[in-house]
Amino acid sequence: MCYVKTRRMFILCKRLFPALFLFLWFTVSHAQGGYELWLNYRKTENPETLEHYRTHLLSVVMDENSETVDAIREELSTGLGLMLDSTVSFISEIPEKNSLVIRKTENLPSGLRNTLKKDIATIENDGFLIRASGNTVIITARKDVGLLYGTFRLLHHLQQGLPLRNLRILDIPKTDIRVLNHWDNLDRTVERGYAGASIWKWHRLPGYIDPRYKDYARANASVGINGTVLTNVNASALVLTPAYIEKVAALAEVFRPYGIKVYLTARFSAPMEIGGLQTADPLDPGVRQWWRDKVDEIYKTIPDFGGFLVKANSEGQPGPQNYGRSHVDGANMMAEAMAPHGGIVMWRAFVYSEHDTTDRAKQAYNEFVPLDGKFMENVLVQVKNGAIDFQPREPFHPMFGAMPHTPLMMEFQMTQEYLGFSTHLVFLPKLYEEVLQSDTYRHGKGSLVARVVDGTLDNKKISGMAGVANIGSDINWTGHPFAQANWYGFGRLAWDPYLSASQIADEWLRLTFTNDNNFIKPVKNIMLESHETVVDYMTPLGLHHIMDTGHHYGPGPWVGNLSRPEWNPVYYHKADTAGIGFDRTPSGSNATAQYAGEVAATFNNVKTCPEKFLLWFHHLPWDYKLQSGNTLWDGLGIRYQEGVNRVREAQKTWAVMEPYVNKQQFEEVRMLLGIQHEEAQWWRDACMLYFQTFSKQPFPEEMETPLHSLEYYRSLKFPYAPGISPQWH
Amino acid sequence: MCYVKTRRMFILCKRLFPALFLFLWFTVSHAQGGYELWLNYRKTENPETLEHYRTHLLSVVMDENSETVDAIREELSTGLGLMLDSTVSFISEIPEKNSLVIRKTENLPSGLRNTLKKDIATIENDGFLIRASGNTVIITARKDVGLLYGTFRLLHHLQQGLPLRNLRILDIPKTDIRVLNHWDNLDRTVERGYAGASIWKWHRLPGYIDPRYKDYARANASVGINGTVLTNVNASALVLTPAYIEKVAALAEVFRPYGIKVYLTARFSAPMEIGGLQTADPLDPGVRQWWRDKVDEIYKTIPDFGGFLVKANSEGQPGPQNYGRSHVDGANMMAEAMAPHGGIVMWRAFVYSEHDTTDRAKQAYNEFVPLDGKFMENVLVQVKNGAIDFQPREPFHPMFGAMPHTPLMMEFQMTQEYLGFSTHLVFLPKLYEEVLQSDTYRHGKGSLVARVVDGTLDNKKISGMAGVANIGSDINWTGHPFAQANWYGFGRLAWDPYLSASQIADEWLRLTFTNDNNFIKPVKNIMLESHETVVDYMTPLGLHHIMDTGHHYGPGPWVGNLSRPEWNPVYYHKADTAGIGFDRTPSGSNATAQYAGEVAATFNNVKTCPEKFLLWFHHLPWDYKLQSGNTLWDGLGIRYQEGVNRVREAQKTWAVMEPYVNKQQFEEVRMLLGIQHEEAQWWRDACMLYFQTFSKQPFPEEMETPLHSLEYYRSLKFPYAPGISPQWH
Repeated sequence: MCYVKTRRMFILCKRLFPALFLFLWFTVSHAQGGYELWLNYRKTENPETLEHYRTHLLSVVMDENSETVDAIREELSTGLGLMLDSTVSFISEIPEKNSLVIRKTENLPSGLRNTLKKDIATIENDGFLIRASGNTVIITARKDVGLLYGTFRLLHHLQQGLPLRNLRILDIPKTDIRVLNHWDNLDRTVERGYAGASIWKWHRLPGYIDPRYKDYARANASVGINGTVLTNVNASALVLTPAYIEKVAALAEVFRPYGIKVYLTARFSAPMEIGGLQTADPLDPGVRQWWRDKVDEIYKTIPDFGGFLVKANSEGQPGPQNYGRSHVDGANMMAEAMAPHGGIVMWRAFVYSEHDTTDRAKQAYNEFVPLDGKFMENVLVQVKNGAIDFQPREPFHPMFGAMPHTPLMMEFQMTQEYLGFSTHLVFLPKLYEEVLQSDTYRHGKGSLVARVVDGTLDNKKISGMAGVANIGSDINWTGHPFAQANWYGFGRLAWDPYLSASQIADEWLRLTFTNDNNFIKPVKNIMLESHETVVDYMTPLGLHHIMDTGHHYGPGPWVGNLSRPEWNPVYYHKADTAGIGFDRTPSGSNATAQYAGEVAATFNNVKTCPEKFLLWFHHLPWDYKLQSGNTLWDGLGIRYQEGVNRVREAQKTWAVMEPYVNKQQFEEVRMLLGIQHEEAQWWRDACMLYFQTFSKQPFPEEMETPLHSLEYYRSLKFPYAPGISPQWH
Repeated sequence: MCYVKTRRMFILCKRLFPALFLFLWFTVSHAQGGYELWLNYRKTENPETLEHYRTHLLSVVMDENSETVDAIREELSTGLGLMLDSTVSFISEIPEKNSLVIRKTENLPSGLRNTLKKDIATIENDGFLIRASGNTVIITARKDVGLLYGTFRLLHHLQQGLPLRNLRILDIPKTDIRVLNHWDNLDRTVERGYAGASIWKWHRLPGYIDPRYKDYARANASVGINGTVLTNVNASALVLTPAYIEKVAALAEVFRPYGIKVYLTARFSAPMEIGGLQTADPLDPGVRQWWRDKVDEIYKTIPDFGGFLVKANSEGQPGPQNYGRSHVDGANMMAEAMAPHGGIVMWRAFVYSEHDTTDRAKQAYNEFVPLDGKFMENVLVQVKNGAIDFQPREPFHPMFGAMPHTPLMMEFQMTQEYLGFSTHLVFLPKLYEEVLQSDTYRHGKGSLVARVVDGTLDNKKISGMAGVANIGSDINWTGHPFAQANWYGFGRLAWDPYLSASQIADEWLRLTFTNDNNFIKPVKNIMLESHETVVDYMTPLGLHHIMDTGHHYGPGPWVGNLSRPEWNPVYYHKADTAGIGFDRTPSGSNATAQYAGEVAATFNNVKTCPEKFLLWFHHLPWDYKLQSGNTLWDGLGIRYQEGVNRVREAQKTWAVMEPYVNKQQFEEVRMLLGIQHEEAQWWRDACMLYFQTFSKQPFPEEMETPLHSLEYYRSLKFPYAPGISPQWH
């Protein structure tokens, strides 16, 4: 209660004495640092709404007992307490007066159960129902964790100042496995991590439980994430040794009340590295026994362990092919060990080989599609959103829809490996939405990728979505204050792949900052444009993989000397005096043949191929006419310039947002937009100067003169750019 | 003002509704995380004291203008504002009524200047005077930074609830250079860092200024630290390239108002690595010119740059000896480049060679003492406190007092490389005090190491103290909440090497937590005993360097197979069936001959040698009789056990301290003491089991039975223990 008052006064005083706060802000910089994420409960501003909420919600009927129910009680005490500026009473009998009732369906009084009969009948799995009925607001679910999800949803509803009258939210998660993938190494470096060290303080576990672990669980549960893979897909076998299993168990204990299971990455060669075996051949009985024993050992310590995520025979990682076996042999060996415990295996389809000279974009499909139907039931094949590697923009991966008998998990990347690290503002749900809304046409029109992911397209028994986390030890978790929105948005889309990016941006802004529309409208606009902006200043018109090598920081379209051809940018843009782009039509690599006929036809025809994918699928002459009437060369320059221009517009918009956010976050975003602007210009200048060596044409007049020479840009080196794991050194 | 109110109410409510706070604490975990360090200004608790302060201090006369004066104003607004729960008025005329006057001596009104004449005459350099006189409290100094130091001291005085009446604090720093040494790499790993990633976000500089940088400067200035070496002594030359100099300049700009200069580590081979030269020979004219140009370039960007810290010809680092030149040649080359700009060179004396078969403890002295008097005036030789390497306990380094013509800087280590990382509670000012109070006898009795460090023993023109920082990106900066006290204490002792550890502990506890003596007394006791405790459970009776290899985590007395003999623990303890210890008397390595005669005589005689250094200087039989009457073997076991016992006592004491600290810090310290207890037992058991293989005797009855076998302890491996830089992989 008092904490609530302090918050209210703080906000009030900030308005009354802005000058004073100029002096004070620095001492509260820590509190302003964004640690609270979207759970930064603020007092309800509108007095009528506040009264309305108080009347209905301050008596909470909760009489069940479990760790999860305790977590609900705690969250309500804090969340309702702060938002309603009052103390919450917990009671065990439903009173005459208004109350908030939180009970599992089976424990609702028969009257209520009868009233809600129809809705209750449709609640499944982890779903929940929130209903205002008579003088009660009810949250009900089949399971405790459903009650938790419902509670967070109600708190989010209130933080947005929305009415309780006629409230009815019936929401059931559309996927089963909603997991973060942490590419965190045991030495606390994070591969492709741009928000500081790993939050897992392995050295201090299990004796020391960092307070962050619980706040991490709260944040995840609040958006419906129900699992976390703690370790890098480029895995260390050591995490499977007893000392580490004990550490993992300590984390699992913190996460359990929040419905979050832990998973680990399993290094395929672990039986040799930590088991002392001579082989890791998946058909070797000793190896199979080793994995069974290891999995039994894990479940003995962590009874609700989730399972394994495996990167095998990919970028140097060991796998079944080292022994002449297939992905099916490898995955099923582990799945067999998992099956008695209800565990799963997530087997990554991110494979391409230096011995395969076909278009890299085709290789995963070629390798996996023939295996359809051969995996055990508890195996999911985890597929990146596109066929290359988390580029700023890619067409949807052709595997989606092409394996009707195998559950395919979507793998999105939240960490901005190719999207400006944590210094660029990019709202990724726009990218996710574009992919999920893509139509595979595998069962005719409407066969959306979202329907592959949620399993409805081919009636999959299990479904899931994975997101490569952008979380680190930075006080604000994600480096860029706006990168929190990508974590939030991933969770929301994993729960419901049909949500719109616009709705997610709106929710996140309201939860994180304010409901003031003078802020929401322009800043939401920045967010919704931000992905297109980055694509324009990095890789417009279907360009891809033209970043610098290793760290992937900044432009490197000129790189062509790497040992594996498909690691070189020149492999992807194929610029020459004749033109630019990768011909993936039947006249080229014919990668389009991996899509359904309708899709392939659209992509193959340069007139129907969306311009955003133009150079992904076609090699075109520099004077090719774009829909705008511009030549390809001019159009390219104009796109690069437009990307830069939109960053400038975002800077201008942000400059007047100071009244709506705290001083620290205002400054942080201001400085970061400054860096983004510089780097947008860098991309434009470096790429256009380089491509000009082929086009031999002047820059379009819309484009600003480059700030430096091509030699200058080529000379830049960044040996300490963040996010490179020791194994890449 | 309102922020003040919120803090007051928060504390008040916490007392009134502890149960409620059980529910609320987790949401404020971030605010409770210790980020504010000892600048966590709390409202004055005693009402009379509060009124007394308010009467005297709420009108502040400040009419000078500079960045530093602005910083003072800001700190007073916050600090006085919070502690006095009121708004501070800044005025430019001295009023009739009570006021706080902050002016340089030259700007004091003549009346006041006359009254304070005597005190004013003695203020030198960065010193300050705080005087209560009539109806004013005056802070005066020769320089702005002196006013800043005085301001922080007054704020600390008030936070301890001390009276203003007859207040007179005249304090002048006793050393010139008071610097942190960050062993931070450009990839944000920290060598021997146990508090997360480096706080320097190099990748984001100069465009993004982390709010931490300013808070770092405030914390340092508050204890008188006036410089920071940003980079690891195992240096990368890249920090001397233009792109990084620009980043360093951005940090220097944040630190400048707080009187903090930036320094860099200079890699000796930089002229070759980034300068394209064929040699780094310090007598080569091209090399000398390169350094002059490089230093000019730095000063052009950072006019108040501090200078270089150099680790040369040590542990594989390049240096002048690579070219057959001496440390003098190397240091003077850089000093010559620095001289026109007023910069200095700190040249480390931490050298030992794999080609030198003499006792490692003797090598630095042998190499450096003959060079006395040959260094340029702006060179300081930086000497670790002991002759080996920051062991839990070492006798003072024999170089102290042995180079009358060369300024010797003290190098202490705050980061707990050999003292339990950031999981063990160790109050290091006890160690520092023991060293500083050691008597070198170089000019007879009273020739304290402190007098070498402050330069008074041989009238040095320049003096300084360096502390290897324990700071990282952890929310609480130092990993262990109590490790903040080591940062605080280092700063206080750098300013005044004669301060007592007890006073420092008292100050820090009051500033950080509370003035309640029910807390101060027992917890100060834990702190003051903690160093002896760690020595007892790790390296009692003069044992040293018996930790495990590489990461230095945990015991490894059995290690004897490393390529360089002096890297092996067996080299240091020399345990055999006859006994244990390193004979450094004339019958052994004769390292004692490097001390003054009186000191050598004391150490040489096994009866006068302090038992805390017994095995440092003597190899003694297992049945040697200690002063207690116990045999050496039994006494060793009893010491190990006593170390464990005192951790248990600390646990018991801490268990009842919950009312005095916030929930999160209480829990953190509780968990960390649990880890410390386990590791204390581990040290005891591993070392005693190993030494038993030589002594062939049963453990003394005071000692608990080991928990595991020697084989078990020898089998433990910690490949991901923190703090190992890439160059050690």
